[in-house]
Amino acid sequence: MNNVLNDDVIAAISTPVGTGGIGIVRMSGADALKVADRVFVSPSGKTAASFASHTVHYGHVVGKDGKIIDEVMLTVMRAPKTYTREDIVEINCHGGNVVVGMVLQAVIDAGARLADPGEFTQRAFVNGRIDLSQAEAVMDVIDAKTEAGVSYSLNQLSGGLSKKYQGIDEELLHLLTYIDAALDYPEYDVEEVTEKELDQDIHHMMDEIDTLLQSAKVGKVVRDGIDTVILGEPNVGKSSLMNKLLREDKALVTNIPGTTRDTIEDYINIGGVPFHIIDTAGIRETDDVIEKMGVERAKQMVSQAELVLYIEDVSRETSEDDKQWRSLLAGKKVLHIYNKVDLIDKSDQETMKDRLDTNQIVLSVKNEEGLQALKQKMVELAVGSESAVRKADPIVSNVRHISLLKQVRRNLENALESMTIGMSVDIIAIDLKDALDNLRKITGQSLGDDIIDQIFAQFCLGK
Amino acid sequence: MNNVLNDDVIAAISTPVGTGGIGIVRMSGADALKVADRVFVSPSGKTAASFASHTVHYGHVVGKDGKIIDEVMLTVMRAPKTYTREDIVEINCHGGNVVVGMVLQAVIDAGARLADPGEFTQRAFVNGRIDLSQAEAVMDVIDAKTEAGVSYSLNQLSGGLSKKYQGIDEELLHLLTYIDAALDYPEYDVEEVTEKELDQDIHHMMDEIDTLLQSAKVGKVVRDGIDTVILGEPNVGKSSLMNKLLREDKALVTNIPGTTRDTIEDYINIGGVPFHIIDTAGIRETDDVIEKMGVERAKQMVSQAELVLYIEDVSRETSEDDKQWRSLLAGKKVLHIYNKVDLIDKSDQETMKDRLDTNQIVLSVKNEEGLQALKQKMVELAVGSESAVRKADPIVSNVRHISLLKQVRRNLENALESMTIGMSVDIIAIDLKDALDNLRKITGQSLGDDIIDQIFAQFCLGK
Repeated sequence: MNNVLNDDVIAAISTPVGTGGIGIVRMSGADALKVADRVFVSPSGKTAASFASHTVHYGHVVGKDGKIIDEVMLTVMRAPKTYTREDIVEINCHGGNVVVGMVLQAVIDAGARLADPGEFTQRAFVNGRIDLSQAEAVMDVIDAKTEAGVSYSLNQLSGGLSKKYQGIDEELLHLLTYIDAALDYPEYDVEEVTEKELDQDIHHMMDEIDTLLQSAKVGKVVRDGIDTVILGEPNVGKSSLMNKLLREDKALVTNIPGTTRDTIEDYINIGGVPFHIIDTAGIRETDDVIEKMGVERAKQMVSQAELVLYIEDVSRETSEDDKQWRSLLAGKKVLHIYNKVDLIDKSDQETMKDRLDTNQIVLSVKNEEGLQALKQKMVELAVGSESAVRKADPIVSNVRHISLLKQVRRNLENALESMTIGMSVDIIAIDLKDALDNLRKITGQSLGDDIIDQIFAQFCLGK
Repeated sequence: MNNVLNDDVIAAISTPVGTGGIGIVRMSGADALKVADRVFVSPSGKTAASFASHTVHYGHVVGKDGKIIDEVMLTVMRAPKTYTREDIVEINCHGGNVVVGMVLQAVIDAGARLADPGEFTQRAFVNGRIDLSQAEAVMDVIDAKTEAGVSYSLNQLSGGLSKKYQGIDEELLHLLTYIDAALDYPEYDVEEVTEKELDQDIHHMMDEIDTLLQSAKVGKVVRDGIDTVILGEPNVGKSSLMNKLLREDKALVTNIPGTTRDTIEDYINIGGVPFHIIDTAGIRETDDVIEKMGVERAKQMVSQAELVLYIEDVSRETSEDDKQWRSLLAGKKVLHIYNKVDLIDKSDQETMKDRLDTNQIVLSVKNEEGLQALKQKMVELAVGSESAVRKADPIVSNVRHISLLKQVRRNLENALESMTIGMSVDIIAIDLKDALDNLRKITGQSLGDDIIDQIFAQFCLGK
């Protein structure tokens, strides 16, 4: 991949692989319209090069043998107001694997070359339309598993996070400019940065970074969801609880084919947190579930879970199986649910409630008692508190950003330490310059081409 | 599904399910622009209703809570020059499952309803833009497994087949008009259709139908490909032959990700015929392949195959295994290939060639001897002859059409028979009317709404 302004035309299938109503072959580059004219035939006889920007035209794509390949709609978008800031042509054809492939082949035969993964977005970055953190957000939007994930990634894409980084960037730059001026021109009466000011500013930036790093914990959960397993003996109410939670969360995907609901696992949005819930009852519960699925299988599911909802039936005696289940929970984040409290005496219920630990809860799925409390507990266990999700905005969810922010923080700590032991400002400036350099790696301003290539190589094709 | 002009706005995801650069949510209906305005926010503040037809606009889709869902490009296409002849709005958003689902949910919340499968195309049909055979061709283009399949379906879509049907339609109508006129107004001196003319015309239509029915055989093969199994003992050259055939056919899909080449089966285009070739060697060949995969497995593969390429090594003795393989071939279309002729004497080769049956061929995969002859034989076995593919244009490949064409032919036969036994023209007219009625079922002019609904229900979503 070449990280300079490319004049060559890149092309790729931008729609998902598979069969659908519409497929799109997209081209970008200074000569995109020229390539389009070699494959596109309009009934009016007009050329693509003659079309106004942001207009759509009916016609046919023809192969190099002159034979018609498909009936298409051609969209022309002229630089600079495009995704890549280059001329873009989108060919909207029939959405079959073979036919979309044939259209792609036609534009390649006509002079375009197959785009690398993420190359359209890389051009948007190279041509200065977006910074690296925004480019990364493009893939986060596409890969988002939950509505909240889409929302946070979109915030990052529209520059919400970039603004935060820029704020710190400006603060660092401001400090460094003053220090440099004071060092370079001691003869002039440059307003000196006092130690107190320096100390205040560095602490302020560290606070900003801490907020971002704290958002990261929430961000990871919001982006990937939290793997949650519902565990317990047969007939304690696992499936009922699962269904109740699902019904409460009128998940948007319900009516959309292709995203059919799997009965044994699903995403449930509670207080902005996507819980990826696996109901172990889904794995065919027979008379003796522990026999059937095997302790090994259960162990595996629990070990992979980030949260276990362990359900007991308070109206029944604890069985041997129950003890066996409990033994799997050591070291896990567990919410202990005492279900079917409607089946025991009111006074026993009260006694029970009084004795509850933090991570224990009484519930009646049947009467919908305690469901709100359960959800609140789940959110607390996942991200600390419900307000944590609201507070964490913008959210840092990219591992690369987290690691770089930690480095920036270490650079700032070093600067503070240098101050404490009485180092001169030029030594402190080195730490601050490192901090700035690391910060700019996030937005891509101070990253090598090879690393940038690596980042874009993880993108999907056609974006 | 309601088979009348709908004013309600239908919406669906038109791109394939999965992850890609771009996803499209498409709407159609008189109020499509109104719905668009409820979800679309342009930075310029302009409304979708104010956009000119066939233009593309940057903006955001917002949900009912006013929160931004995605950054999109909105395409407005105004009736009647659209796919459905209604107003169409396409929302081009990020191609992730969740985000596309959210955009769809937003337009549904704003008043659109989820489209049934094929409903966009059904509207194109109901609104008179295309006939039923063209509508069916839309799905054939999308489902096409081969380049030839795309090409023939596109011909049908652009009306190549419709024209043929119309020709017969006009001929029938012409006859019926004359007969009716002669019957209704015997007092006028209407030019009467002579028996000879009637006989000639009916025979001409039957010839036309026969040509179409003959194309159907080719059509089925061209559309679905012909399942071909390469069978034979280990080390007779099965994989070498497969590779040689693949390399000769520079399949267009080679460089396109998502259509990766499976080493044990592939489509190979020979003379316009797509052979779906399964190399039984791909099923891990060990020392004793018949042991390994089992006679049952081999039987199954052969029984499903439409063509078997059975390879022997002429330089080796026929083994017991070989006899066992051969026993599977009873009743199948088999091309018998004697490979490795390069290993035997020239004189023996000549003797062999002299003794060959029609479906036998000598070959040297290594020296590429006999490959052209092999391909020609394969095409002959598949569709009769290579020219059959060229001749059969347009091609009838739809089972519904074939069955209706056969009925039309029977109606015409009955008419001829009625003439032969001296029936009056009004009896003959009944047969001709039946023929016309059946013919018009192909183009959808004389089909009940329920049957039309059934046909469109087989379409994919979003088309």
